[in-house]
Amino acid sequence: MKAPVVLLTDFGECDGYAGVLRLVLQQHFPDLPVVDLSHDLEPGAILSAAFVLASAVPYAPHSSVFCVVVDPGVGTDRAVLVARWPSFTVVAPDNGLLSLCVRLYGTPYCYTVEIDEVRELLGMRPAVSATFHGRDVFAPLAGLLASGREVSLLALGTPVLLPVARPQLPEVTGVYALQVLHWDRFGNGVLSLHRSECEAHSGLSRARLRGRGIELQGGVNTYGEVAPGEFLLYWGSSGWLELAVRDGSAASRLAFSTEPFHLVLP
Amino acid sequence: MKAPVVLLTDFGECDGYAGVLRLVLQQHFPDLPVVDLSHDLEPGAILSAAFVLASAVPYAPHSSVFCVVVDPGVGTDRAVLVARWPSFTVVAPDNGLLSLCVRLYGTPYCYTVEIDEVRELLGMRPAVSATFHGRDVFAPLAGLLASGREVSLLALGTPVLLPVARPQLPEVTGVYALQVLHWDRFGNGVLSLHRSECEAHSGLSRARLRGRGIELQGGVNTYGEVAPGEFLLYWGSSGWLELAVRDGSAASRLAFSTEPFHLVLP
Amino acid sequence: MKAPVVLLTDFGECDGYAGVLRLVLQQHFPDLPVVDLSHDLEPGAILSAAFVLASAVPYAPHSSVFCVVVDPGVGTDRAVLVARWPSFTVVAPDNGLLSLCVRLYGTPYCYTVEIDEVRELLGMRPAVSATFHGRDVFAPLAGLLASGREVSLLALGTPVLLPVARPQLPEVTGVYALQVLHWDRFGNGVLSLHRSECEAHSGLSRARLRGRGIELQGGVNTYGEVAPGEFLLYWGSSGWLELAVRDGSAASRLAFSTEPFHLVLP
Repeated sequence: MKAPVVLLTDFGECDGYAGVLRLVLQQHFPDLPVVDLSHDLEPGAILSAAFVLASAVPYAPHSSVFCVVVDPGVGTDRAVLVARWPSFTVVAPDNGLLSLCVRLYGTPYCYTVEIDEVRELLGMRPAVSATFHGRDVFAPLAGLLASGREVSLLALGTPVLLPVARPQLPEVTGVYALQVLHWDRFGNGVLSLHRSECEAHSGLSRARLRGRGIELQGGVNTYGEVAPGEFLLYWGSSGWLELAVRDGSAASRLAFSTEPFHLVLP
Repeated sequence: MKAPVVLLTDFGECDGYAGVLRLVLQQHFPDLPVVDLSHDLEPGAILSAAFVLASAVPYAPHSSVFCVVVDPGVGTDRAVLVARWPSFTVVAPDNGLLSLCVRLYGTPYCYTVEIDEVRELLGMRPAVSATFHGRDVFAPLAGLLASGREVSLLALGTPVLLPVARPQLPEVTGVYALQVLHWDRFGNGVLSLHRSECEAHSGLSRARLRGRGIELQGGVNTYGEVAPGEFLLYWGSSGWLELAVRDGSAASRLAFSTEPFHLVLP
Repeated sequence: MKAPVVLLTDFGECDGYAGVLRLVLQQHFPDLPVVDLSHDLEPGAILSAAFVLASAVPYAPHSSVFCVVVDPGVGTDRAVLVARWPSFTVVAPDNGLLSLCVRLYGTPYCYTVEIDEVRELLGMRPAVSATFHGRDVFAPLAGLLASGREVSLLALGTPVLLPVARPQLPEVTGVYALQVLHWDRFGNGVLSLHRSECEAHSGLSRARLRGRGIELQGGVNTYGEVAPGEFLLYWGSSGWLELAVRDGSAASRLAFSTEPFHLVLP
C-alpha cells in the first residue's frame, strides 16, 4: 500500500494548471495514488491554505505527502521546504503555509531543498519555468518522496528550523487577538484558536468575543441555542473556534473581515 | 472488480471539505475506487442533488454506493438512510434526496442507521463533530458498504418505508404543476416530468407549458426548430423535460425562477 | 501500465455532467486511469480549450488519450474527430479545438468517425441523446482507444486532413496580429505566439506590442523588472507569450479583451 500525494493549491480548475500537476504525477509515478485536497483556495490565501492543510492531516493515510502550492513568491528566491512529521510530510514554499501544522503537530524535521538538485535526481533538465514551480518542482518532488524511493534530503538541501508560533492561552485574564484564518463556503469564519490550545479554559464559558461591532458570550453554542439570524460561536469540526450566523452567512454580515477579533478572558 | 463509492455533495472545493472525504476513504479503504460525481451543487439544493443523483444512476458501475451529502439539517435529529436498489445503494440524510430515485427506480430496501453503531463497527471513537457528518459518518459508511465486507443493516439500524411520490400523468385533460428541479450551467431548466412517466402522451404534442409569462407549445423541439433567443421545450439527455433558450440562457430570462410551471393537457 | 484518458471539458462541476463522464469510464473501463485536466473552461471557449490542451501534452503520459468536449455545435452535423499524434491521441468535435496542437506538434493522422459505428463497436444501443455526446460518444470512444483494444479507425470513419495554421513569424519587419487565447485565473493573458515559432526573433527585444491603449517594449520581462501595477510581457510557463500586470490583473485592466493585439517588428 503506497502513501498518496495529496495536492493543495490555489490554481483553480479553470486553466488546466491543477490538471497538469495530476498529469506530471501520472507520467512519472503512475502507481502512486493522488488525492486532490483542494485547488480552489483563494489565490494567495496563505492562512486559508494553512487551515485546510492542518485540518486534513488527521484524516490522511499514514505517510501521506502533501504538495502545497500557494506561492505568490514564485520566481523570487523564497525557499522550497520539505517538512517531515512522524506521520506525514509536506512540500511547500517557505511562506507560512506550515505555521498551523507546527502549532498543532509540533516542530518537524525541515529542509530547504535546491531546485536543481531535485530535478537532477529526477532525471529532468535543469531549466524550469520561472512561474510554474508547482509543475516543475513541487509535484515531482512530492511524488519522489511518496514513491518510497530512497532519498537523502541532506543531499538535496539544508536542514532549517521552522519558527514556532504556538499561542497557548495562559491561565490569566487578558485580551487575545484572534485572526480569521478562513471564511468557508457556508459563510462561517474559522478563528485562530484551537480547542487543544486552551484546555485550561474549558468551553470558554466566561470569555467574550469582540470585534466588528459584535460581542458574543463564550460558552460555546450549538445552532439550536440561538435564533435564526443570530451569531454563534462554537468549536468547528476541525477543532478551531468558529463564528457563524444561524441560517445565514457570518462572512457577508461581517464583509469577509480580515481584521482581528478580540477574545476577552475576565 | 470493486464497486466504487460515488461522492455527491454541496461542499464546494474551496474549503477542503470534499478533499477530506476523499482522504477518509483513501485512509480506510485504499483499494476502493472513488468517483466524484459533483461537489459543486448549490448549498442546500435538495432537488438539484436528487436530479443529479437520479441522472447518474444508469451510468454508474453495478453495485455503486452513492454517498450524497446535502444536509442542511446536520446536527439535528434527522435520520441517516441507507437505501438499497438492486443495482445501486445510496447513503444520505433523510431529507428528500432520494425522491427522484424512488420515482424512477422504484421503492428500495431502506434503513435508518444509528451513527454510533456505524462508528463502532468501523472501529472509530463514538465522538463525532456535530457539523461534519460527511466526514465522520456518511463517507466511512459508504466505504464500508462498497468494500464488500459483510454488513448487517438490521444490526446497524431499522427498516423504514420511503414515501413514494410518482406523479404518473393520467390520460385525461388537466393542468399539472411542474417544478424546476435544477438550473444547469448552460442556463437550461430541468422540469419535474420524466419521459418514462408520460408514455400515454407521446411527445406531449398537444400540451402547452405556461408560467412566468411564457407559453410554449409541446411537441418537443430541437434547437434547430426555433430562432435564436426563443424558448424551446425538449426531452433532456437524462429524460427529464427541459426548458431552454436557443443561444441563450433560460435561467437568466426567467430569473432562476423557483415558481412552478403549468403543463396543460387539452 | 495503461495510458490514461485525460478529460477536458467546459461542463463545470455543478451539474454532475463531468461526474457522469467519469462514471461512464469507470463502468466500461474500470482499469483505465482517468485524469481530469479541467472541466471549468468557460462555456464554449474553443481557444481556451485549445491552449489548455496543447499546454498539457508535454506533461501527459505517453499514449494518453485526450477527450476534449467543448462543443457548442452538439446536436448539429459537426464531425467527431480522432486525431493521432505519435505520442498522444485526441477525441474531439471538429470545431478548432485541435488547432494549437497542429501548430506545435504537426499534422496528425486524423479521422472523422461515425457515431453509430462507435456505439455499435462498444455494444451500445444506437440511440444517443442529441445534447450529451460527451457521455454517449466522446468518453466511450476515448476509453476504447486508451484500452489497448484493437480498433480500426478506417472501419469507424474516414481519414481527413486538418487545416494547418502555423503562423511562423517571418524574418522581416511587419505587423502581426495576436489573439488572446486565454485569460487565466491570475489575470494573465496568453497570446497566440509560441516561443518555438519565432526563433529568428530571439527574445523579441526589438519588438513592440500594441493594443487596447497599451504599448509594451519586447525584450521579454520578469516580474522583478517592472514596478507594481505595470504591464509586462514574458514567455509563459508553456512557451506562449503572456501579458501580465505585476501584483495585479491584466484581465481586469484590459476588460478581458478579445480584440487582437499587434506585434510590431521594426
